Amino acid sequence: MIFVFLNFVLSTQSYDPLDAPFPVIHNQGFESELSKTYVRLPDRAHGVVRDPLWDLSRDSAGLYVSFKTNSNDIVVSYKFAYAKSMAHMASTGVSGVDLLAKDEGDGKWYSVLSSFSFGSNSATYYFKGIKEGEFEFRLYLPLYNCVSDFLITVNDGSSFEWIRKDTRTPIIAYGTSILQGACASRPISSWTNILQRRLDYPLINFGFSGNGKLEPEVIDFIIENEAKLYILDCLANLGGYSYATIKDLFYNAVKQIHQKWPNVPILGVDHAGYSYEDMVSSTHDEVVKCNTAQKAAFDQLVAEGEKNIYYFTKEEIGLDYESFTDYVHPNNYGMQKYAQSYERKIREILGDSF
Amino acid sequence: MIFVFLNFVLSTQSYDPLDAPFPVIHNQGFESELSKTYVRLPDRAHGVVRDPLWDLSRDSAGLYVSFKTNSNDIVVSYKFAYAKSMAHMASTGVSGVDLLAKDEGDGKWYSVLSSFSFGSNSATYYFKGIKEGEFEFRLYLPLYNCVSDFLITVNDGSSFEWIRKDTRTPIIAYGTSILQGACASRPISSWTNILQRRLDYPLINFGFSGNGKLEPEVIDFIIENEAKLYILDCLANLGGYSYATIKDLFYNAVKQIHQKWPNVPILGVDHAGYSYEDMVSSTHDEVVKCNTAQKAAFDQLVAEGEKNIYYFTKEEIGLDYESFTDYVHPNNYGMQKYAQSYERKIREILGDSF
Repeated sequence: MIFVFLNFVLSTQSYDPLDAPFPVIHNQGFESELSKTYVRLPDRAHGVVRDPLWDLSRDSAGLYVSFKTNSNDIVVSYKFAYAKSMAHMASTGVSGVDLLAKDEGDGKWYSVLSSFSFGSNSATYYFKGIKEGEFEFRLYLPLYNCVSDFLITVNDGSSFEWIRKDTRTPIIAYGTSILQGACASRPISSWTNILQRRLDYPLINFGFSGNGKLEPEVIDFIIENEAKLYILDCLANLGGYSYATIKDLFYNAVKQIHQKWPNVPILGVDHAGYSYEDMVSSTHDEVVKCNTAQKAAFDQLVAEGEKNIYYFTKEEIGLDYESFTDYVHPNNYGMQKYAQSYERKIREILGDSF
Repeated sequence: MIFVFLNFVLSTQSYDPLDAPFPVIHNQGFESELSKTYVRLPDRAHGVVRDPLWDLSRDSAGLYVSFKTNSNDIVVSYKFAYAKSMAHMASTGVSGVDLLAKDEGDGKWYSVLSSFSFGSNSATYYFKGIKEGEFEFRLYLPLYNCVSDFLITVNDGSSFEWIRKDTRTPIIAYGTSILQGACASRPISSWTNILQRRLDYPLINFGFSGNGKLEPEVIDFIIENEAKLYILDCLANLGGYSYATIKDLFYNAVKQIHQKWPNVPILGVDHAGYSYEDMVSSTHDEVVKCNTAQKAAFDQLVAEGEKNIYYFTKEEIGLDYESFTDYVHPNNYGMQKYAQSYERKIREILGDSF
């Protein structure tokens, strides 16, 4: 019996991303400070940005770690901070992970997910029976929870190699719950994660659920990271503000970013709409207010000679009533539409330069 | 204070679908027995079909009630039987309802969802601030729960009129959890519900999670209801069976249906695949076994002169690795693909005859 037990214990090898010899957490900003964490803003933001936003910055939205192995079985276990329960978003999206494998043959990504088991503040994911060969894997972290104690366990004798973080100058997106990932049913399905794969390019997710409000003190942190493109997609959190305030917020945000990075393009993004705006006129009016205010600021900036700014309209995003989980958050179908539309727009802006 | 209280109480009117003067529960079979319930098989199936399937037949998957009102606010409250918690499916899909409104102007459906509140075995949905006018509404029932005590509450003085159940000979679909609705994030997003709207035609959902196994005793009940088309989409629950058993099950199911309804077309449907089958060869092999076995039965039937049978392939369904919530259940993106593909196929089969 002891032999069997030992045999079981010795039959696997475990790896902790935080013990990797170089940064392995992709799509994360503030590399010198954060590369040994799963968070999105440095500790020194605490007390500078509002507390709810700082709390959300602990969530691992958009992050993944990458490695190669030829193990036939991979087990991922971790803890998460909040037993967060959301009626409209499955636990697999809130607190779950995801593993994709790249087939070197066709260069495409494939899912490896077999099963999972959730505790109140921990989870174990099983990826079993993977076919022979060494593959590059991407382990996507939870969209709406703060994780710790990650262990990636492979079969004994398998190869295992960390893949260094992609350090190309990233696209940086700042926004709301929609940008953070609500309501994707699993991490690979948030629009930033889909888009990142489609572009094959680093993309930092600064989505803060309910708290993407174009605040200067948040933008100050975000632009510590140089970007290939800054995306401002905050209107779904600004509906309660006046036309004038929204206009000022966008105008000032562009000025603030371009003061530091004059040549980096900025993409202003419309409110994609509410699922019920055709039947509930007040919500339609709110979307129109948000979008006309932001577009007015954009037009004013252009008229004043501001360069390197672009605009992405509600019509270009193209959601319909079947694209939503609730009144505003896209379901996986809406997330695909978001990602496809964003890809088209970003390729228009950046052309072959990335 | 008493006046205010009375004013509040008197300011709404509530309607119970089970008190309607005629059948109002759409997409339900066994009309003479079930029209005053929210279930899918009659009580006399208890003890004839396996208990787990009978339990699932209490779930209201695919059902909706329909009414007209000019109320600006609609509140729907109800109880559900199970505090069912599924890590991969949001409560809004498991136990939630949905309300769509038809705009007579363009004939399209629109969402009305504003907010909801879930208790452990009850829920309240709010549809507030609906624009002026009388609209036709569809209230979709939960996909994965058994409901009771429904009340539809409108503002006092509003019109309210039940819409009689559509009694055209329905399309009838028999299958698995995928067909029951997993893992749509809300009831309007299950593939049968999307398809029903796209075809504008009644469609009965006999999806039984984990239990769609082509059993003769279940088919006996299903075919008590005459169909415009019978859909057999059970392979995702037959993976554990041998090639020979799967072949026999499909062969016998077609014979059983056509013995009673020789002229009603039957559509056999492939296993749509596993999300991980490209990386986990054993799962690919299982899909191939299921699909070749069923197709062999189909080909044999055709060779024997069987008329009115059709086949819907995995390639025609067309899911990809981003279409799934887990190893097999479609997310909302996958549900849209399913519905679009099914629509194309059914229009090929039924032409303009419906």
